[in-house]
Amino acid sequence: MNKPNAYQQLSQHFQQLAKLSHLNAITSWDQATMMPDGGNQARAEALAELAVIIHEKSTQPQLEEWLEQAKSQNLTSVQQASLREMERSWRNSTALPADLVKAKSLATARCEHAWREQRKANNWQAFQVNLQAVMQLAIEEAQIRADKSGLSRYDAMLDLYEPGMQMQRLDLVFGELQTWLPQLIQEVVDKQASWPKLKQYGNFPSEQQKQLGLAVMQKLQFDFKHGRLDVSAHPFCGGVPSDVRITTRYEEEDFTRSLMGIVHETGHARYEQNLPLDLVDLPVGQARSMGIHESQSLFFEMQLGRSQAFVEQLHPLVKQHLTQAKNMPLSELQQHYLSVKPGYIRVDADELTYPAHIMLRYQLERDLINQEIKVADIPELWDQKMQQYLGLSTKGNDKNGCMQDVHWPAGLIGYFPSYSLGAMYAAQFHAALVKAKPDTPDAVAKGDYSGVFAWLKQHIWSQASLYETDELVERATGESLNPAYFQQHLRSRYL
Amino acid sequence: MNKPNAYQQLSQHFQQLAKLSHLNAITSWDQATMMPDGGNQARAEALAELAVIIHEKSTQPQLEEWLEQAKSQNLTSVQQASLREMERSWRNSTALPADLVKAKSLATARCEHAWREQRKANNWQAFQVNLQAVMQLAIEEAQIRADKSGLSRYDAMLDLYEPGMQMQRLDLVFGELQTWLPQLIQEVVDKQASWPKLKQYGNFPSEQQKQLGLAVMQKLQFDFKHGRLDVSAHPFCGGVPSDVRITTRYEEEDFTRSLMGIVHETGHARYEQNLPLDLVDLPVGQARSMGIHESQSLFFEMQLGRSQAFVEQLHPLVKQHLTQAKNMPLSELQQHYLSVKPGYIRVDADELTYPAHIMLRYQLERDLINQEIKVADIPELWDQKMQQYLGLSTKGNDKNGCMQDVHWPAGLIGYFPSYSLGAMYAAQFHAALVKAKPDTPDAVAKGDYSGVFAWLKQHIWSQASLYETDELVERATGESLNPAYFQQHLRSRYL
Repeated sequence: MNKPNAYQQLSQHFQQLAKLSHLNAITSWDQATMMPDGGNQARAEALAELAVIIHEKSTQPQLEEWLEQAKSQNLTSVQQASLREMERSWRNSTALPADLVKAKSLATARCEHAWREQRKANNWQAFQVNLQAVMQLAIEEAQIRADKSGLSRYDAMLDLYEPGMQMQRLDLVFGELQTWLPQLIQEVVDKQASWPKLKQYGNFPSEQQKQLGLAVMQKLQFDFKHGRLDVSAHPFCGGVPSDVRITTRYEEEDFTRSLMGIVHETGHARYEQNLPLDLVDLPVGQARSMGIHESQSLFFEMQLGRSQAFVEQLHPLVKQHLTQAKNMPLSELQQHYLSVKPGYIRVDADELTYPAHIMLRYQLERDLINQEIKVADIPELWDQKMQQYLGLSTKGNDKNGCMQDVHWPAGLIGYFPSYSLGAMYAAQFHAALVKAKPDTPDAVAKGDYSGVFAWLKQHIWSQASLYETDELVERATGESLNPAYFQQHLRSRYL
Repeated sequence: MNKPNAYQQLSQHFQQLAKLSHLNAITSWDQATMMPDGGNQARAEALAELAVIIHEKSTQPQLEEWLEQAKSQNLTSVQQASLREMERSWRNSTALPADLVKAKSLATARCEHAWREQRKANNWQAFQVNLQAVMQLAIEEAQIRADKSGLSRYDAMLDLYEPGMQMQRLDLVFGELQTWLPQLIQEVVDKQASWPKLKQYGNFPSEQQKQLGLAVMQKLQFDFKHGRLDVSAHPFCGGVPSDVRITTRYEEEDFTRSLMGIVHETGHARYEQNLPLDLVDLPVGQARSMGIHESQSLFFEMQLGRSQAFVEQLHPLVKQHLTQAKNMPLSELQQHYLSVKPGYIRVDADELTYPAHIMLRYQLERDLINQEIKVADIPELWDQKMQQYLGLSTKGNDKNGCMQDVHWPAGLIGYFPSYSLGAMYAAQFHAALVKAKPDTPDAVAKGDYSGVFAWLKQHIWSQASLYETDELVERATGESLNPAYFQQHLRSRYL
């Protein structure tokens, strides 16, 4: 047997890392869904030990050498894409010196831990000291990543979640959004002012909601041989491609949120379940980016899930599974899923106001990383922008303003844009699908989603990270990111 | 900071291994309880990768050096015990050469996999070829372990499950058992011949059985902050001491088996949950042996669980939780838990006939390892012994005879005796407890188990592996293993 060449060595290395990530994915899922409280200390220690082992393996000195050698090998185009993604993964995991990784881990742990109480107490003064420390390290991190990648500071952070995306393009995208979104929100709010008040239908037992959720997952062709549905405090999609674990949280007084949450996570899950098997443990076989991942969950939730056709099909399932909803008229279910109401909290926002929350956060974190504003400036700027975009003031209400998200305390900078990029890609994919298959709306109206899923599988799911995001989107839709489709979608749905 | 000394290095090493074992315990539990079928391949690969990492760490060359150096350090008695257990663990995990480990892994995987079909087909001819290969490697393994430990072949295998136990003692124990057990079984069967036939009470939904099981776990002071109850095809106790996962399997037509199974696993669980916190990740902080572990589950199941007092207290819980059992008289519940009936299958055996199944297996595996009999001789010897001990012939019925267990196909030789040692230790512990606290039966009759659990915690649970098994048992009961207590217990319960 010949000695494996550099490309083969790299592949083996990343396949081994994938096995270790598998252990992390399942034990983390267990921590969120199954683990009793008393198991937390031992679990945290076991996961920390695993992180050390993964870090040691990810930073082996031979990797740099193999990456160099592999570049002069005779590689197929798939292998070239694989090498590109292995190099990106390697660059991102080795960029930071060990002392910065440690300092960041300590600062974010401290900030996030204290934040849970400080937020409740609306204590910005205490919080900002910790956030200042986190942000200082984030700026250091961004600078080091920028130096190593040749990107600008913020772009280097974006590269962790949304490879290839740039601040310059986000400025255009959100700059344009800012010109029409606040006005559109106002128009829709005015239009909906005459809608009747929604009735209370009493309690919906979790077990009934679960059966309803499973029925909807079935309809959306979630593969139950390769995944399951459980409960956690914060819904997520975890696990591994051959065993995708989605979660929800049931509120007994309102089933609509968990139900649409399940539709959302099912979108994430079907992407994972349909990644190409032959590349499964390699970086190139993984989902393209955070934004593309979110485009799939939002395709399911927003393009399909809240459409008239889907809600009409949902209605009999709701009546069948939920005893207390057996007399709920279709119009009320539709109203639930189309109501627009500006609010303080991002995670509670509807489809139309959500991008305003993201735009605000993008603008602030960009300016923080570029040292154009300071942490101390955040509350005032937050209030200003909330007034400007959503007509709400957060003055003196930081717990429902700039203290609401875990992202910054956790050191996640460059992550927020992915949510809105996902919504925009989803609208663009839907438009391309309808253009390619004009009979899609008719089929969907009859409950036949096979054409929709076939298109997504062909153009997105099976493509994993074989192409850079722009190329993936161009191959799927004929053009790169074009937010006009998102605007069209919102106008046609809400006006 | 001083450089850590050899003892500290060893401690850190084993604490790190414990974190990795944690990952193995939780992902293995998940595999048995939660994982959808389609996740199996990826899970197997991830667990195999983890096993490689654990093996690499367990066989680091520095360990031998540290073990030598630590012996000349000035250690406390706890540290000396810790060092003894670290050395045992190290010796057992490094004894075999890599090529034998691999050959064994392949042979057992092949044998176990094929066995699942061969057993159904009653195909001894095909099975024996694979078992022959496994047994040949087991003999090689036993010889190598014997050479390294200075023990005899079978004793070296016993050391993996029941450190300190020897074939010579087992020959005495089972030799004596053989003189009175078959006769006692016959007497009890004759006595029970006049018992009425048990009624069928219809179906018992799993959810009701689960609530009953949880109520019984509560009564037995299972700590739900550090553990949980789930369902798996084969019941087990897994997880880690701060997060103990027990499982059961509900049969809707008969609740009694799962219920007593839960009592049994709760015994295992309380041992784990009460191991000493300060030694938790070290070998010395772990359960003493398979047999001592089984002594705790059998103390719960046999000494407590099937006692008249406990069944009387169980009765109202059964009627409360199981709609279909609400008119079941106490006498029937008692009869369920005391019926003796010789049968072919070990895992279905009652308390009285179980040791006969073990005695048979011990005698055969001892003679196989010592090359006094051949694999080809098994069916005939099995049939002879089953006739002799239980009055049943397995001629031509190998699937319910020598093909029923997974242990030998899986290469587990030296494991079976632990089941009966556990039963004997349990009886001896119970006798010692009642001698030390004569008011125990009165307290238990009133449903007060606090004295029982305090005794077990003081003498067994908190002692972990601080003493060799004989010393542990002597400190707890005033003498080393004495099977007379087991005989007394059986006679007083069943005659």
